[in-house]
Amino acid sequence: MATIDRAASIARVAADINELTGPAYTLTSDAIRRYAYTDVYASTLDYFETQFTDLGFDVSFDPVGTLVARNRPSGEPVFGVGSHCDSNRNGGPYDGTLGVVVALEVCRLNAEHGADLPLQVISFLEEEGSGFGQMLLGSRIMVQSVDEADLRENFRSLDDGRSFWEHAEDAGYDPSRWRESVNVLDNHLGWIETHIEQARVLQDTGNRLGIVNAIAGYIHGDITVIGRADHAGATPMDFRHDAAVVAAMCITELERVAKEAGNRTVGTVGELSVSPGLINVVPGEARLSLDVRGPDDASVKDVVASIKSYAHEVAEARGLEANYAMRQTLPATAMDASIVSELETAAAGSVEPYRSMLSGAAHDTMCVASRVPSAMVFVPCRDGISHAPDEEADPADGALASEVIFEAIQRLV
Amino acid sequence: MATIDRAASIARVAADINELTGPAYTLTSDAIRRYAYTDVYASTLDYFETQFTDLGFDVSFDPVGTLVARNRPSGEPVFGVGSHCDSNRNGGPYDGTLGVVVALEVCRLNAEHGADLPLQVISFLEEEGSGFGQMLLGSRIMVQSVDEADLRENFRSLDDGRSFWEHAEDAGYDPSRWRESVNVLDNHLGWIETHIEQARVLQDTGNRLGIVNAIAGYIHGDITVIGRADHAGATPMDFRHDAAVVAAMCITELERVAKEAGNRTVGTVGELSVSPGLINVVPGEARLSLDVRGPDDASVKDVVASIKSYAHEVAEARGLEANYAMRQTLPATAMDASIVSELETAAAGSVEPYRSMLSGAAHDTMCVASRVPSAMVFVPCRDGISHAPDEEADPADGALASEVIFEAIQRLV
Repeated sequence: MATIDRAASIARVAADINELTGPAYTLTSDAIRRYAYTDVYASTLDYFETQFTDLGFDVSFDPVGTLVARNRPSGEPVFGVGSHCDSNRNGGPYDGTLGVVVALEVCRLNAEHGADLPLQVISFLEEEGSGFGQMLLGSRIMVQSVDEADLRENFRSLDDGRSFWEHAEDAGYDPSRWRESVNVLDNHLGWIETHIEQARVLQDTGNRLGIVNAIAGYIHGDITVIGRADHAGATPMDFRHDAAVVAAMCITELERVAKEAGNRTVGTVGELSVSPGLINVVPGEARLSLDVRGPDDASVKDVVASIKSYAHEVAEARGLEANYAMRQTLPATAMDASIVSELETAAAGSVEPYRSMLSGAAHDTMCVASRVPSAMVFVPCRDGISHAPDEEADPADGALASEVIFEAIQRLV
Repeated sequence: MATIDRAASIARVAADINELTGPAYTLTSDAIRRYAYTDVYASTLDYFETQFTDLGFDVSFDPVGTLVARNRPSGEPVFGVGSHCDSNRNGGPYDGTLGVVVALEVCRLNAEHGADLPLQVISFLEEEGSGFGQMLLGSRIMVQSVDEADLRENFRSLDDGRSFWEHAEDAGYDPSRWRESVNVLDNHLGWIETHIEQARVLQDTGNRLGIVNAIAGYIHGDITVIGRADHAGATPMDFRHDAAVVAAMCITELERVAKEAGNRTVGTVGELSVSPGLINVVPGEARLSLDVRGPDDASVKDVVASIKSYAHEVAEARGLEANYAMRQTLPATAMDASIVSELETAAAGSVEPYRSMLSGAAHDTMCVASRVPSAMVFVPCRDGISHAPDEEADPADGALASEVIFEAIQRLV
């Protein structure tokens, strides 16, 4: 293992992050706000282009504006690293951007140590959906899991309502060639994305890195409970068809079955409303959202099936009705065992605390993994706060991720 | 018992109700909307004034405009009947008004049968609070449970923000004499108010009358649960401080303790919200309202104390915090045993199905009962619907209430 000048590495990562929180890179001084085809997004790509060019990389853009930097001619095998540098509309300095900065630092370490690894960095477009309301848009385009009609017509700017297609053309790209984006992932030996954790498992367990071995799949749905609104004073307990009570039973039952399911399955009721919502009226209707996730699709499905039938049963037993409707679902994505194993070996070699973990959130790597053996590295963020201006992470953890990825790739190529 | 021409009585009650749903008596054609000092409220008082005057009653108004009609000179004992004829802002034809119509019909039966009972009818002002946001305002003024400063300054029109005092003066009343209103309840042998039930106990049990033996007291409060908002995908089940789960536990526990308390105690969570309220975020905060009522104040207090300590305990055990704050409370009002008994005897004599019951809702009779032995009679309303334009009741049940009250008063005076 090369002896890495950690202090220098930390300083570089910190400088990159610091630079990209400046006024040239965000639409507002209250938060980091940058998304595709804005001037501040272009400035951000310019910054990375300069950095990669300085390292001798060729920088190009796919037909919609995803940045690609590589140190090998097109057609030759490379190992991929990267993330995205667009932000949430009211975001912080680290979500996405740190992953591109870490990828850049991997390339710097590669130069510094003369390792000459074959590398390609991608900075994906519109991961957050801040520009057009479409999450993972750049990586979905790259793996061709979009319809041209959507790009041309249906995906529209949240700011001015004009189409993605028009905006891409105005920015100087050629969206009519979007299908060629697929070639960016050709001849890949593997892919590693770094991202802040967006939860507090690493912080609370005292670990500096998380080696992601799966990205959770999820089912989003809603349960609607139909009871009967009645006067809260005038209606005896045994005359009620109280929708709030059935909703409450479903909430505690979801917690129970999610825990029982194991396999790192989680279940959440994040939205909850009762109607008419007056202190002196027994709720006639209640709605609760379901968010069930985990690396094991069968467990996720089982939990949803279980809560659905529980809701039906308790509602019926009390003379109410409960209906379940799914909003959307995505299967879990397994990470590549060899890459995970080499990352763990490298992390252990760093003598810094790390843990293997699940990614509960979705990432561009879910798309990349359909083409390329993939893995992810998480770094802690303070109190799990993300998608907010006070999002914080330690550049030292980013530098550590770069070091571990650099070591792992050396064993993988 | 006098033989009452029920068909004629029903026709009169139906005609009164029908008249008072006309355009002269409501501010909108979509609902019944009338409240103090509006033209349509004045028209309603005019209608009753004409009816009582035709029966030989003296009609007067207390210093704020509460209608008083009596067939005995001031100073002589009377038996009181009545209710209110103001409506909810989006109300129906029966809430309040039917009680005044039933009182009028008692007076008609009294004339028809030459019973010459000493009667006084009150139509209370602003029971619903539609004009100034203050429930039971007329009866609270009559029993002097208001502050003059509130009447002069703090109670303000929901329509134009001007004070109750100014509006009363503009309508030709003399609010500076409001303390004289107390005399309206002097020399009373008793008081009976008729009201629609506003719940579905009578309908569902097949009864045409409810003889109210207590008006429930209540405690209104709120529980706020403070947990921690976390990413719903990235946060394992055992890392969560989920405010929604604690709120849900409180909801099911409230149902359990209210049932266990017995004594016709009821407990309701009618308002429920979680924050931030996003499908993919574990709720960091939850708020639930508590409405606990019953005829037994100790049971009501016990239920609130029990749910409050339960909330504290489960929150603490899970690393969250739960705070309880009371909004307001009113003790239960017992009805007068003799009046209740005579009403039950008369109801039994009518050979129509009736039941003894609790009033879960508040009524002007809560104020009257502080001065005068009181009771109430409920008539069914369809599906318990009230405070809504589709509120429905059967004039025949109103006529039956008049008959039963007429019979009972004959035994009570």
